[in-house]
Amino acid sequence: MSDFLGSDFLLQSPVSRMLYREHAASKPIIDYHCHLDPALIAADRRFASITALWLGGDHYKWRAMRANGVNERFITGDASDWEKFEKWAETVPYAFRNPLYHWTHMELRTAFGIDETLNPESARRIFDECNAQLRDKESMTPRGLMRHYGVETVCTTDDPADTLEHHRAIRESGFEIKVLPTWRPDKAMAVENPGQFAAYVRTLGDAAGVRIDTFAGLCEALQRRHDFFESNGCRLSDHGIEEFYAEDFDEADIVGIFARVMAGETLSEDDVRRFKSKMLLVFGEMDAASDWTQQFHYGTIRNNNSRMMQSIGPDTGFDSIGEFATASACARFLDRLDSAGKLARTILYNLNPCANEVMATMIGNFQDGITAGKMQFGSGWWFNDQIDGMRRQMNSLSLLGLLSRFVGMLTDSRSFLSYPRHDYFRRTLCDLVGADVEAGLIPFSGYEERRLRQMVEDICYNNAKNYFKF
Amino acid sequence: MSDFLGSDFLLQSPVSRMLYREHAASKPIIDYHCHLDPALIAADRRFASITALWLGGDHYKWRAMRANGVNERFITGDASDWEKFEKWAETVPYAFRNPLYHWTHMELRTAFGIDETLNPESARRIFDECNAQLRDKESMTPRGLMRHYGVETVCTTDDPADTLEHHRAIRESGFEIKVLPTWRPDKAMAVENPGQFAAYVRTLGDAAGVRIDTFAGLCEALQRRHDFFESNGCRLSDHGIEEFYAEDFDEADIVGIFARVMAGETLSEDDVRRFKSKMLLVFGEMDAASDWTQQFHYGTIRNNNSRMMQSIGPDTGFDSIGEFATASACARFLDRLDSAGKLARTILYNLNPCANEVMATMIGNFQDGITAGKMQFGSGWWFNDQIDGMRRQMNSLSLLGLLSRFVGMLTDSRSFLSYPRHDYFRRTLCDLVGADVEAGLIPFSGYEERRLRQMVEDICYNNAKNYFKF
Amino acid sequence: MSDFLGSDFLLQSPVSRMLYREHAASKPIIDYHCHLDPALIAADRRFASITALWLGGDHYKWRAMRANGVNERFITGDASDWEKFEKWAETVPYAFRNPLYHWTHMELRTAFGIDETLNPESARRIFDECNAQLRDKESMTPRGLMRHYGVETVCTTDDPADTLEHHRAIRESGFEIKVLPTWRPDKAMAVENPGQFAAYVRTLGDAAGVRIDTFAGLCEALQRRHDFFESNGCRLSDHGIEEFYAEDFDEADIVGIFARVMAGETLSEDDVRRFKSKMLLVFGEMDAASDWTQQFHYGTIRNNNSRMMQSIGPDTGFDSIGEFATASACARFLDRLDSAGKLARTILYNLNPCANEVMATMIGNFQDGITAGKMQFGSGWWFNDQIDGMRRQMNSLSLLGLLSRFVGMLTDSRSFLSYPRHDYFRRTLCDLVGADVEAGLIPFSGYEERRLRQMVEDICYNNAKNYFKF
Repeated sequence: MSDFLGSDFLLQSPVSRMLYREHAASKPIIDYHCHLDPALIAADRRFASITALWLGGDHYKWRAMRANGVNERFITGDASDWEKFEKWAETVPYAFRNPLYHWTHMELRTAFGIDETLNPESARRIFDECNAQLRDKESMTPRGLMRHYGVETVCTTDDPADTLEHHRAIRESGFEIKVLPTWRPDKAMAVENPGQFAAYVRTLGDAAGVRIDTFAGLCEALQRRHDFFESNGCRLSDHGIEEFYAEDFDEADIVGIFARVMAGETLSEDDVRRFKSKMLLVFGEMDAASDWTQQFHYGTIRNNNSRMMQSIGPDTGFDSIGEFATASACARFLDRLDSAGKLARTILYNLNPCANEVMATMIGNFQDGITAGKMQFGSGWWFNDQIDGMRRQMNSLSLLGLLSRFVGMLTDSRSFLSYPRHDYFRRTLCDLVGADVEAGLIPFSGYEERRLRQMVEDICYNNAKNYFKF
Repeated sequence: MSDFLGSDFLLQSPVSRMLYREHAASKPIIDYHCHLDPALIAADRRFASITALWLGGDHYKWRAMRANGVNERFITGDASDWEKFEKWAETVPYAFRNPLYHWTHMELRTAFGIDETLNPESARRIFDECNAQLRDKESMTPRGLMRHYGVETVCTTDDPADTLEHHRAIRESGFEIKVLPTWRPDKAMAVENPGQFAAYVRTLGDAAGVRIDTFAGLCEALQRRHDFFESNGCRLSDHGIEEFYAEDFDEADIVGIFARVMAGETLSEDDVRRFKSKMLLVFGEMDAASDWTQQFHYGTIRNNNSRMMQSIGPDTGFDSIGEFATASACARFLDRLDSAGKLARTILYNLNPCANEVMATMIGNFQDGITAGKMQFGSGWWFNDQIDGMRRQMNSLSLLGLLSRFVGMLTDSRSFLSYPRHDYFRRTLCDLVGADVEAGLIPFSGYEERRLRQMVEDICYNNAKNYFKF
Repeated sequence: MSDFLGSDFLLQSPVSRMLYREHAASKPIIDYHCHLDPALIAADRRFASITALWLGGDHYKWRAMRANGVNERFITGDASDWEKFEKWAETVPYAFRNPLYHWTHMELRTAFGIDETLNPESARRIFDECNAQLRDKESMTPRGLMRHYGVETVCTTDDPADTLEHHRAIRESGFEIKVLPTWRPDKAMAVENPGQFAAYVRTLGDAAGVRIDTFAGLCEALQRRHDFFESNGCRLSDHGIEEFYAEDFDEADIVGIFARVMAGETLSEDDVRRFKSKMLLVFGEMDAASDWTQQFHYGTIRNNNSRMMQSIGPDTGFDSIGEFATASACARFLDRLDSAGKLARTILYNLNPCANEVMATMIGNFQDGITAGKMQFGSGWWFNDQIDGMRRQMNSLSLLGLLSRFVGMLTDSRSFLSYPRHDYFRRTLCDLVGADVEAGLIPFSGYEERRLRQMVEDICYNNAKNYFKF
């Protein structure tokens, strides 16, 4: 029986263990997509408590607690830090086989040096020990933790109207780790809610110094902000969409739709889709012109619980996996950009793992024979960010494309403690290819051995480094 | 090489074997969803023959025989018991890797003590031996078999218009095993066929003692029958639907649709969907008010072979897995109930295993932090009720929710010999978590060891016991 | 650690190895679906080079090269044979875990006796050695390779207007391997492009000696060509469709649609679907009348890259997996034929592996109890033609139907070097069932041992032999 979370955790064969140790374990981390708050990095203040750090905004944990019958008061309510932590500690042993179980203990070990398992018996000891370290230990700040985990670059997720002041402050502070913004213009196409959209357009116009009266004005403001993001080190965009939009439209349609939505008119479903079809192209063209990478995260259904939405707002653990037949629209959208010579490097992330094979073959349609791995099938996202989900993503990519060109892992996290997920990924990767070597599926001597060793390093680090051009 | 169906069947690691023996094997069975005929339990008569018992109504076996080129005369036709059994015995060795192969031999062993494999050479011996036991052995009756397998509770599946006389007779007979009805009101929303619907409404009205002239009358009759079921021990509803319905409608629409369908008018597809959207809410509200659990089995396409439908009727082996994009409607439906404070405990079963991740995340949207595991992702259903299907369901649930809170297995069967499926499930469960322990994915000492041992017992028995409140 | 591609390649248990060696390895090959050019077999000329043979038309390899950043000049452009081969040799070591990696080395070993791995260091040696053998070795022709690999029958893929002259020439040459045509009438229902359709109808009319002025004329011409194919040994049809079509229509609709499309009118989407619904029935009825087998390959989205479509045409590596909810239409289509007593033996191939369970259960709806395995769920197709895809297809078929009745593998290939894919399949099959024996899931003595051994031979050879009636 293997030790729980032992040094060979997830590494079931000798070759897997060797590959991990020699080529994966100590590579720096490029976390090219996350939701860290740059203000926290700029301020670099200590965390109030392990409860704040772990349970302050982590809706994965909140969902698990609710499923375990924990009252909302102990989740997002007014219970004390200790009460909330205690409820979490009661929930953890009910989470066997869930990634939260591994993440929790990997974080305790790697950040706090605590090998004990978290359960109701150990909860108080661990709570006190973590809080003592958070209070007393030099390295227990955002920057300290990023250094501790060997982070080289992180990309946050930011609205086009954002001032990026915190990014600038970080840069000017001389912090040696790159903290770059990511352009996430979802609100600029959210015309399904005219009031919110119009308000956002004003905010955007103010940020850009453009008075937006027409669709052309919107595009101009976006381009100015895009330039501003570029000048602040941004090299990536990201788009959260339900599905891909690639309707037929003409430019006059769009001009009219914009005018109507700004006048407060509720648009038809068709008009919404036409407008989004246009905006995805506008965004794509800007990214291509700037030689950025565009990311698409699609397939979520959000805010499914309206009672909780009213009570505690969005992004609190009430989203789930949707069902969309979007392959044809995705192909049409990418083809429009490609036909115009304006298809940027692109990463596609699907939330429903049923679409793994669809996306793994979709990227093959637009590989251009210029940039190796130009089109990427993104690492297991959100609900799929666990051993099985990562394996399935890597299997699909391997069997239907080139695993060797994969840009690898990201945390997608709001927490400074999530970097062990890169280790989780690296172990899973090494286990996968090591098992293949053991089984005689991959040769392992001479040229091929060197290639495989290099492949592991590439996926853990070099591919992302070369691809994103930070 | 392991023995076929040996004592370690499906248990590939020492921990798996230990967990199974100490915590799973001997737990009583709560079979909370099945299709047993309560009349047979009430009468408790001997079975005519192994052919009647095995092949009289089992469309799983019929499908396999047809695929193997067996003429319908030997399946549902007028061939003799021996001829039919012989054809089944010829088919069995062609069913390697199909769950029927395991079920057949598990049933022979556990019910009849026959270790021999069934094939054309052994067929006559086994036929004669089974029939002799069915004729001579005391315990070979419905009640005897239920006792033999350690059944504690079963829930049958019943129409709201059913008299439940057999349930009452069973209860009054002093039978120590609980045999409870389940409320299955599918016909009360099947407005796509006006003639059948109107006839059913009359039947229902007669049963309820209500003259149903209006939609309000329909609801009143249903409520009276719901109360009647409640007074007969019913604690569960069940709904067989193609997909979830959550259209917008107003009450006047529904009143009008009801009037029109009762007048014999064929409804538009839109009207059918609106009516079903309403009825699902009506059903859900009644269940919430009674503190029942509601079950939804969705995703089948039925009666695909119209030639056989005309010749031998429904439920004869011509149904298959459909493709429905129903995540958004499912969320909307559950949200409507939840928003009104009327969401009962709910179990969702998908027939297409592609939706495993959708359903495993859907339940997380409505866990309420009051009842642990209130929302359940149901065990692998129908075609998925086999090792791979059960593993996939448990993997999805584990990775995306809390396996610990799972209410576990049910047979969904029409046969008194199907209880070994619970054993099949328990072995699969123990194999899964035992393998994780061996691999260092779950800790196994102290608090966690006790928790894991308890978790196995909970999933096999306690969770269902606590959840359903029989 | 196992040797790469050693004699036990993919065979992880003793029983697997035994089954493979005794019952699978040396069975003749019936390649009942491929895209070989019959003209090449008729001429039986030597291949110009390993580049022509490997890279002349293989869009799987082209996709991999593009993903690896290889410029189109070295793929479909004017680079020299050596330059193209060199680029391929550079790409191969980036294709670990992709089936191309195994196929490449299996082909080098079995056709050329080259055990060396292909990489930039070995590229020149291997290029020269292959080319020398292609130039000098007697057996290095289409017919020689087919003999070398133990091929018994191949079925090419042919348009109804084809003269089949090469098939006749092959037959008349006395070639001992059967090379039969397959009826692929996709163009006869491609009414979405009126101009191309009308041109095709003229070509077809000319081939049939029928002046096609009406829909009846179209059917008559098709029937004549169907008879002609029949007289040339054809026993199979094949249909490449996005999804199944089973709309309601009446005959007058179809007559009118045909008239309009022939007049150059662009049809509505509805009319296109109605016409295709009719044509699928027409094709199916012809096949039933001739006792052929009909095949359906569905679920692709094609020609997604219009820039490359314009530059190098279709079938060049820009197709991918689509998303279609077609289960209901598929059932309706098959039911219409079955109701009319006109359902031929049928093989269903889905491109999206998510539909595996849908198709594996769909076939059960129409098994007729006359022909064992009449309805087939086809082997992993195109992107799924790799270890994982084949395993998933066989698992679904096993668990939801009868693996024993499976007609097994086909290459679907344009290359005379693809026969090792049958070996790949056979090893995967033997590994799968052997592992089950080792785990105690399948008994292995007496009757059952004989049956399992026979089952392996049946799936590798006998089932196809009996099913297709060549």
